[in-house]
Amino acid sequence: METKKEFHNAIFLKQFKAPLEMGKAETKLPVQDQVLIKVAGAGICHSDVHVWEGIWQKGGAPEKLPHILSHEISGTIVEKGEQVPDTFKVGDNVLVYPWQWKYDDKYTAKGLTNVANSPIVPGINVDGGFQEYFLVKSYKYLVNANGIDDIAAIAPLSCGGLTTYRAVKKAVPYLEPDDYVAIIGLGGLGSYAVQYLKLFAPFTNIIGIDTKDDSIEFVDGISKLNYAINIKKMDPKGEIRKIVGRNGLKTVIDLVGRGTVGLYSDLLGKEGIYVLVGLMGLEKEEITPFNTVFTERTITGSYVGTLSEQIEVVNLAKKGLLNYKKPISKTLKLSEAYEGIINLEEQKAVGRQVVIPSATPR
Amino acid sequence: METKKEFHNAIFLKQFKAPLEMGKAETKLPVQDQVLIKVAGAGICHSDVHVWEGIWQKGGAPEKLPHILSHEISGTIVEKGEQVPDTFKVGDNVLVYPWQWKYDDKYTAKGLTNVANSPIVPGINVDGGFQEYFLVKSYKYLVNANGIDDIAAIAPLSCGGLTTYRAVKKAVPYLEPDDYVAIIGLGGLGSYAVQYLKLFAPFTNIIGIDTKDDSIEFVDGISKLNYAINIKKMDPKGEIRKIVGRNGLKTVIDLVGRGTVGLYSDLLGKEGIYVLVGLMGLEKEEITPFNTVFTERTITGSYVGTLSEQIEVVNLAKKGLLNYKKPISKTLKLSEAYEGIINLEEQKAVGRQVVIPSATPR
Amino acid sequence: METKKEFHNAIFLKQFKAPLEMGKAETKLPVQDQVLIKVAGAGICHSDVHVWEGIWQKGGAPEKLPHILSHEISGTIVEKGEQVPDTFKVGDNVLVYPWQWKYDDKYTAKGLTNVANSPIVPGINVDGGFQEYFLVKSYKYLVNANGIDDIAAIAPLSCGGLTTYRAVKKAVPYLEPDDYVAIIGLGGLGSYAVQYLKLFAPFTNIIGIDTKDDSIEFVDGISKLNYAINIKKMDPKGEIRKIVGRNGLKTVIDLVGRGTVGLYSDLLGKEGIYVLVGLMGLEKEEITPFNTVFTERTITGSYVGTLSEQIEVVNLAKKGLLNYKKPISKTLKLSEAYEGIINLEEQKAVGRQVVIPSATPR
Amino acid sequence: METKKEFHNAIFLKQFKAPLEMGKAETKLPVQDQVLIKVAGAGICHSDVHVWEGIWQKGGAPEKLPHILSHEISGTIVEKGEQVPDTFKVGDNVLVYPWQWKYDDKYTAKGLTNVANSPIVPGINVDGGFQEYFLVKSYKYLVNANGIDDIAAIAPLSCGGLTTYRAVKKAVPYLEPDDYVAIIGLGGLGSYAVQYLKLFAPFTNIIGIDTKDDSIEFVDGISKLNYAINIKKMDPKGEIRKIVGRNGLKTVIDLVGRGTVGLYSDLLGKEGIYVLVGLMGLEKEEITPFNTVFTERTITGSYVGTLSEQIEVVNLAKKGLLNYKKPISKTLKLSEAYEGIINLEEQKAVGRQVVIPSATPR
Repeated sequence: METKKEFHNAIFLKQFKAPLEMGKAETKLPVQDQVLIKVAGAGICHSDVHVWEGIWQKGGAPEKLPHILSHEISGTIVEKGEQVPDTFKVGDNVLVYPWQWKYDDKYTAKGLTNVANSPIVPGINVDGGFQEYFLVKSYKYLVNANGIDDIAAIAPLSCGGLTTYRAVKKAVPYLEPDDYVAIIGLGGLGSYAVQYLKLFAPFTNIIGIDTKDDSIEFVDGISKLNYAINIKKMDPKGEIRKIVGRNGLKTVIDLVGRGTVGLYSDLLGKEGIYVLVGLMGLEKEEITPFNTVFTERTITGSYVGTLSEQIEVVNLAKKGLLNYKKPISKTLKLSEAYEGIINLEEQKAVGRQVVIPSATPR
Repeated sequence: METKKEFHNAIFLKQFKAPLEMGKAETKLPVQDQVLIKVAGAGICHSDVHVWEGIWQKGGAPEKLPHILSHEISGTIVEKGEQVPDTFKVGDNVLVYPWQWKYDDKYTAKGLTNVANSPIVPGINVDGGFQEYFLVKSYKYLVNANGIDDIAAIAPLSCGGLTTYRAVKKAVPYLEPDDYVAIIGLGGLGSYAVQYLKLFAPFTNIIGIDTKDDSIEFVDGISKLNYAINIKKMDPKGEIRKIVGRNGLKTVIDLVGRGTVGLYSDLLGKEGIYVLVGLMGLEKEEITPFNTVFTERTITGSYVGTLSEQIEVVNLAKKGLLNYKKPISKTLKLSEAYEGIINLEEQKAVGRQVVIPSATPR
Repeated sequence: METKKEFHNAIFLKQFKAPLEMGKAETKLPVQDQVLIKVAGAGICHSDVHVWEGIWQKGGAPEKLPHILSHEISGTIVEKGEQVPDTFKVGDNVLVYPWQWKYDDKYTAKGLTNVANSPIVPGINVDGGFQEYFLVKSYKYLVNANGIDDIAAIAPLSCGGLTTYRAVKKAVPYLEPDDYVAIIGLGGLGSYAVQYLKLFAPFTNIIGIDTKDDSIEFVDGISKLNYAINIKKMDPKGEIRKIVGRNGLKTVIDLVGRGTVGLYSDLLGKEGIYVLVGLMGLEKEEITPFNTVFTERTITGSYVGTLSEQIEVVNLAKKGLLNYKKPISKTLKLSEAYEGIINLEEQKAVGRQVVIPSATPR
Repeated sequence: METKKEFHNAIFLKQFKAPLEMGKAETKLPVQDQVLIKVAGAGICHSDVHVWEGIWQKGGAPEKLPHILSHEISGTIVEKGEQVPDTFKVGDNVLVYPWQWKYDDKYTAKGLTNVANSPIVPGINVDGGFQEYFLVKSYKYLVNANGIDDIAAIAPLSCGGLTTYRAVKKAVPYLEPDDYVAIIGLGGLGSYAVQYLKLFAPFTNIIGIDTKDDSIEFVDGISKLNYAINIKKMDPKGEIRKIVGRNGLKTVIDLVGRGTVGLYSDLLGKEGIYVLVGLMGLEKEEITPFNTVFTERTITGSYVGTLSEQIEVVNLAKKGLLNYKKPISKTLKLSEAYEGIINLEEQKAVGRQVVIPSATPR
């Protein structure tokens, strides 16, 4: 165990839309049920771009500047508060469940931690993972990741890998042999979604849909798609109808949510289910009530994932059933974190990007 | 048992939008698994208006003219084919399940008879209940109604009383003490829906919504509403927000489906469920993807009901738990059936109307 | 708000099987997320008898002597730690969820707090409610009970009223109109179970079964039974068969668990469900595998209830849908708590007994 | 299409426990919704042994002698009644769903065809598949098997392959990554069960349990077991505890049902589920109520499978996700059918045996 310094390297958002700045953060020691971890990996997600842009400010994200980004955090326990139980030990590798809350309520009591009444997310609302050490508010947000051989690479499982897990699991009970499933939006999230579908419903036909060939190829290289449609080159409605015939799609996993619901929901067949995941849909979308009734189709939202699902996701990775390394298309040093934000904003990142603080040469 | 004549009274749709005409229909004897019933009640539903108007012709409703309307049929068995089992006897009172099908398929195998691939509905596609005798295609579409004291009055349970049952049952697993449920569209259907809600989720607060005071009063007189909103007089959005506070509605049962989804779905709170039932929604409606994801709300269609649910509905009536008489605001003779159609078209019927063929003067 | 003294009255178990002794307990002030409540009611449960007898000692119940009994605790917040959120205020009435745990795990993450890996129950393992003030380990174990007019009387809802709620809710999805449900063991628990059944499945026929007429009358007086069988006077097998006919029972709620499973499980019909609740069954019971397969029946255990269910139970009481007063057949002063234990041990208590510490003469 | 003769080869049970006798059966032409098929494969199941022994006579199996055995029947449509829809055509390959019923009831309405009130199974109650042509009572019992390359080999999917499917599907919603599942009884059924588990819950650890090494090897050769226990050589209780540790088994799929429930159900951990499938358990078995409550474990029966599940099973085979050929350890000519019965009775058959009537040299 290395000696902790009083201060450690971190990279700060000091002004919206400006480059992140390297600096020093205080290394606070954990008390009560808190846990201090040495950060192994800190993933970059589209939400980081929104926080960086400052467009979520009035929603409390971030609470104040300067702010440390990244809610996808994995690492190793270096010290723990006196109330942390023996189920977590110094030296344990862990993933941080980021969808934390200020106080328990009826949703957390039910295990629906993802819709808690008082959400507070590190990296979004308060300081996150772009630093060498990270103080976890409570051991209860930790998932044991011992046995994982690349601890940095599981960081995105707390957001990208979790959100797609919940979404796919919502659809699975409805899926039958030979059903058609469309995944809208490939890239990082899509690469997890396709894997989960193959794991939980290997008997379905998967149609991957995106606007870019390299995203399609990226996902297909990780987990084979049955069909792929680049909507910049083909008419998605016509193509899907050609593939699925008159029975329609059974499921849509919509990882985008903008310009998609109106288009794809009407391609659902009887008892079809549309799982809406992407958070880009701030504008209204149109659905057809008559068809919805007649086919008994369902449109349902799925928001990140629960703590219980987080445990399941990490267990799949431990068991070798989820390839968590390939969805990562790029790793960066702490000093390169800003570059990662810009890559994402300019749509130059195909898969997930992860910052590795220990790779920092300072 | 009275002697059956070779011909019996019936009232025919000979020309779309023209008055129905009294005439004689052949009394065919049942063979194989068919059953002949003496019609006790034949309900009038909004779908009858559509068939009468001729707007569903290209969808095969009706298959040909002249046509006998009414898909809500109850009566007494007068003769049965040689393959009909002893579970149905001459003299038994029965309700006819109208959502029939031409051939068995994977949906009927699952009990999802309501979405069978080959629907064929008496009164809609083929001859229905506006006649003294009705030949049921198979005993399998019959539900035993012995023990019911007003057999004519259960006729609407095969459509209005069934559709609302399925819709409410879809919402029930989500309902918790003190949740708010809005029912859009009172009148006949609403009067069943409120009863089911009180039976299966008596711990909820029901908000009835309609455009007419007499519909609101009609339903409230059958089963007390907690709140009522006449949207012609009050702003529904503001009123609902005042009632439900910031937690929002937990459930909407939408018995209309036109001009409603966009308005009421955004009033749903976390884990809310919107059950879309009304078939009037031929135009698009707008939903907000972002809110759908964030609250994890669900919009789901519910179409009529299954044969299994039909059995349950009749059992509730037998047990005295469903008031099936009060939802009927008017009974008519066979010769008055046309009047009933016009009442409905002109929105003059508050509750359900039932034609009683035996009341016909010969 | 009254001034808290340094010490307060409590009644102690100092020696197993000996009379409880009145004494003084230290009034510890709440820190962090702890909450101090003034005890309104402290219920007596059969488990208190077991702890008093010392037969659960090697299972860690209690951890040490002297010990304060009672895990059914309601009261009013008098002081709270600095981490307790605004959702709980000084002066609020609360019910204490007793099925607490030492550390969070995969079961608590799922909301299955009742089967947590590290259970620690006040009154059972550590000090409980037979005292004027009780220090709650964390606000997260509290359920808001404002609006309840008799706060002492809800104490038993945390055990008797919760355990029966979970059990009945497990059966409800299987219940259909006219199904027969047997409740084995009336008295306090039975009086809650019958109420829940009528609330969630009012269309069923309830058969109450007990060994004593006064227990049967007690429950019947709170919520009408459809049938009652005193097995000391009648053959339960023969009687039930006479009532239910060849379709058998659909559900058994077994609040006893000793000498019952072998007898009643074979009376279940197709798709029947046997919910085993009572903890008295330390000896083996016989079932018939062939019949279990052929009827597809299910035998399932139900252990206390979750925190989420606790919230629902209190909400039912608030809404006036659960009569929580009538199940209490006796209230006692703190100095009379020992009498209550003996009543239960000698089977002289028909309903639940609640100790009211504020009624103690000082 | 070959010409049908008036009579065709069949092998008859004329006297219980005596050798089957070759003879001629009348080739009846299909009327109404009946379908005549040329039998491709007719599987042998343990139930055939029971019928042959005459021990199920008073239960109506068979209804009379002489009788034709085999309820696992696949083949090709050669002629169809006038009411058979176009969804089934002459020349189509089909599997016959054997769990037929005399009349529709509330169970069939729900799709629970496996527990219909009036079961009548070809090969068990009435004539079955040990003949060249078989008259199916209604097209509704047929499942389209076009696209299957070895139509004879799917015969056992209607019993062995179906029963295990339903059983595994009952457990699947409970299974999580790294759970342990024990399958009691390998051989034919076990070889399907293991495949389904790997398909629907690939993240579990499977422990195969049998009394014979060749059965273990047979299943392991078809679908790899994680652990195997020969209870003739090892103490199953001790071995399982060594493997699963203190969390216990999550699921038991018991394909035997005799001498197993008492032993293995107490090895279940929290929220465990025991699916009882085997019909050999005519004697009582012991369970522990206290443990059942405390762990909230479930014991549930699973009987054959529904028509809807039959469709799903055949679809899995079509899609290449179920290896239906390897579970068959022997094929026989019609004249050798008796040999197959004796093999099974003497426990000399490791996997499933299928009779191929067209292979008959007469």
